[in-house]
Amino acid sequence: MRHTHLFTKTRKNAPKDEVAKNAQLLIRAGYIHKEMAGVYSYLPLGLRVLRNIEAIIRDEMNRIGGQEIIMTALQDKTIWERTDRWDDSKVDIWFKTIFKSGGETGLAITHEEPLTRIMSSFISSYRDLPCMVYQFQTKFRNEMRAKSGIMRGKEFLMKDLYSFAQSPDEHEAQYQAVREAYVRIFDRLGIGAITYPTFASGGIFAPFSEEFQTISDAGEDLIYVHEEKKIAVNKEVLDPDNLAKLGLKRDDLVEKKAIEVGNIFHLGTKFSEPLGLLYRDESGVTRPVVMGSYGIGPSRVMGVLAEVLSDEKGLCWPRKISPYPVHLIAITGGNDLVHKEAERLYELIRESGIDPLYDDRDVRAGEKFADSDLLGIPLRIVVSEKTMAAGGVEAIDRKTGSSTLIPESGIIEYLHEA
Amino acid sequence: MRHTHLFTKTRKNAPKDEVAKNAQLLIRAGYIHKEMAGVYSYLPLGLRVLRNIEAIIRDEMNRIGGQEIIMTALQDKTIWERTDRWDDSKVDIWFKTIFKSGGETGLAITHEEPLTRIMSSFISSYRDLPCMVYQFQTKFRNEMRAKSGIMRGKEFLMKDLYSFAQSPDEHEAQYQAVREAYVRIFDRLGIGAITYPTFASGGIFAPFSEEFQTISDAGEDLIYVHEEKKIAVNKEVLDPDNLAKLGLKRDDLVEKKAIEVGNIFHLGTKFSEPLGLLYRDESGVTRPVVMGSYGIGPSRVMGVLAEVLSDEKGLCWPRKISPYPVHLIAITGGNDLVHKEAERLYELIRESGIDPLYDDRDVRAGEKFADSDLLGIPLRIVVSEKTMAAGGVEAIDRKTGSSTLIPESGIIEYLHEA
Repeated sequence: MRHTHLFTKTRKNAPKDEVAKNAQLLIRAGYIHKEMAGVYSYLPLGLRVLRNIEAIIRDEMNRIGGQEIIMTALQDKTIWERTDRWDDSKVDIWFKTIFKSGGETGLAITHEEPLTRIMSSFISSYRDLPCMVYQFQTKFRNEMRAKSGIMRGKEFLMKDLYSFAQSPDEHEAQYQAVREAYVRIFDRLGIGAITYPTFASGGIFAPFSEEFQTISDAGEDLIYVHEEKKIAVNKEVLDPDNLAKLGLKRDDLVEKKAIEVGNIFHLGTKFSEPLGLLYRDESGVTRPVVMGSYGIGPSRVMGVLAEVLSDEKGLCWPRKISPYPVHLIAITGGNDLVHKEAERLYELIRESGIDPLYDDRDVRAGEKFADSDLLGIPLRIVVSEKTMAAGGVEAIDRKTGSSTLIPESGIIEYLHEA
Repeated sequence: MRHTHLFTKTRKNAPKDEVAKNAQLLIRAGYIHKEMAGVYSYLPLGLRVLRNIEAIIRDEMNRIGGQEIIMTALQDKTIWERTDRWDDSKVDIWFKTIFKSGGETGLAITHEEPLTRIMSSFISSYRDLPCMVYQFQTKFRNEMRAKSGIMRGKEFLMKDLYSFAQSPDEHEAQYQAVREAYVRIFDRLGIGAITYPTFASGGIFAPFSEEFQTISDAGEDLIYVHEEKKIAVNKEVLDPDNLAKLGLKRDDLVEKKAIEVGNIFHLGTKFSEPLGLLYRDESGVTRPVVMGSYGIGPSRVMGVLAEVLSDEKGLCWPRKISPYPVHLIAITGGNDLVHKEAERLYELIRESGIDPLYDDRDVRAGEKFADSDLLGIPLRIVVSEKTMAAGGVEAIDRKTGSSTLIPESGIIEYLHEA
């Protein structure tokens, strides 16, 4: 991708009303655009990051047998009334609106109700179970305050998977499979080391649910980390009874600020009973399906990555998340031979199967380097008179700043191994 | 994909209130689920079809230099007031709702206003032009009636591209590039032969806009086709003045029912002027940017394909659109050798890079064939005692019904060439 083709530009300052570091950086780098408080559009570089995060999550959901669908934003209030989640006095984050053809509707805050109804068309026997279904869909939440950038929006992307099982035991196996997939996902997203499975309140069907919490100064939650066991406890369940149940001692736990990047819930028959999702077991007895739900917000994850992997110069993406894996920068200083060499390298790298962002703009070196730092592509390749005289290019690691001269003959191999 | 893993099932009847053939077939085949009138979820097979349609459109949008973004559903009413499209007396299809934090918002009916504002952050000079930006995004339209299945929903997927140019001439070149891309898209979607660029009313900046209309008995529009020139005229502009401008004679035109699958518009400065999207030209003069907009609804296209490419037995997808390219069907009749051969072939075909839908269910042959006809995968491969005795498999074309015996050694080559 040529920088001169990209319509976005970096900017010195984020909007004055934007207080979250993630949104400030992403707006300055041209990744996102703020429409209103808590409502953000994704521009070309930002959309590429979001799609890369999605791809990792999708891969792991498919690996455990998840089947992808996509449900709707507009919701049928009748099913939400059956689970008592329609009334504003019960759930206070609905955006509600009116059909001109008659009747009220609302924008999906989550999707347990519609999916439970869909599954009741397809599940009738133990032979239809177990199964897992997921989607990437926009969720709408009418939040009073929206000060966390894309980490907590009024409109945001969510991956939500739902599991359907015959029995608590069958459910438990699904739950563990998703839990392991989540651990792999956060590892692949580059935040595995600072993300803790965290016990939180469980509802009526299980003593605990689990959140995945990433340590961050921008976090809104307080968690209590057991470093050795690589788990944590949310403040809401930090009491002697719960610690005893979990076999943890208060003195072993360290308080940290964290942000929730995923959650996994035992739903039991909370939705299947009121919505009539029933199956006949092997002995012909009709039973309600045992469910679980499992969320990760790709847009929130993107915000968290922007918070925790950035530095004073700007963003700093992992290679698999970065909008482009390599930032090729031509420092021509008006020398046409350097320009030609950069163009030749750009084509060579593309032909090798890597699409670099190529800064082919006619601007000063200092501006190119500052923009490159802000954009946060992990590997920078610089072509200049100096590198050509030395017979190669300079490779600079965005995170460490370390620089290596790569001889011309070794560039492609280096890029594919980096 | 194993059929036994797929959670959806075919059904004999569509919901009684569903009158559109496309939705009836897609619901019966388990591709979509009707949430409410005009509101449909996409189940695994349906989502794969939608993504295949998207992929073709995306490929052609990228080919002409379009840059992909994604904007929001929630809209800032202040920008719609500036173009006078907020008031319900002017635009009567808004879903409107309220922010708990204060103020009114609406669900995007289209995206000219927000994109024009976004571009005003990035376009300031003639050097920033021309450019084209597109997205795949959900649109919401509060229609009174919704009787056309997924061809006209209250919530539906839209690909909308917008072009930005310095001058009418520069705009014209962009317009022609998109027009040619649209012709290629409908060809690749398998409806090129029955889809006509159709002159429609143009607004204040051009005498005509163009729609792409696909001939269908389910169509809501009447168009007048010039077979030889492969163009048409919409009823709304069918008058002697317009025909003279277009150099067409009424007697050469044939009336047809058709459904609009795409449209391309000259917007002029209708949005750039009120929203302040201005640039400095080479001589330093400030001018408004000249815009165009170009829509294709992938979900509507899916509905049209279901309408026009189906027969009395069910759906009938083009290979590149089909959820799976090949339907492998095992007719074991209880013979374990046939089962083993089908399993072996399934793995062999997957290893060759084709993912077939494999009907590994323990149901009667008649049910498998009827389901296969309904699902509409274009190529069926049958393994049975009979085909094994003949030393191969039977390949059946879904559209023509023609059957060929493929010798065992030639199966993979046949599937890759089909």
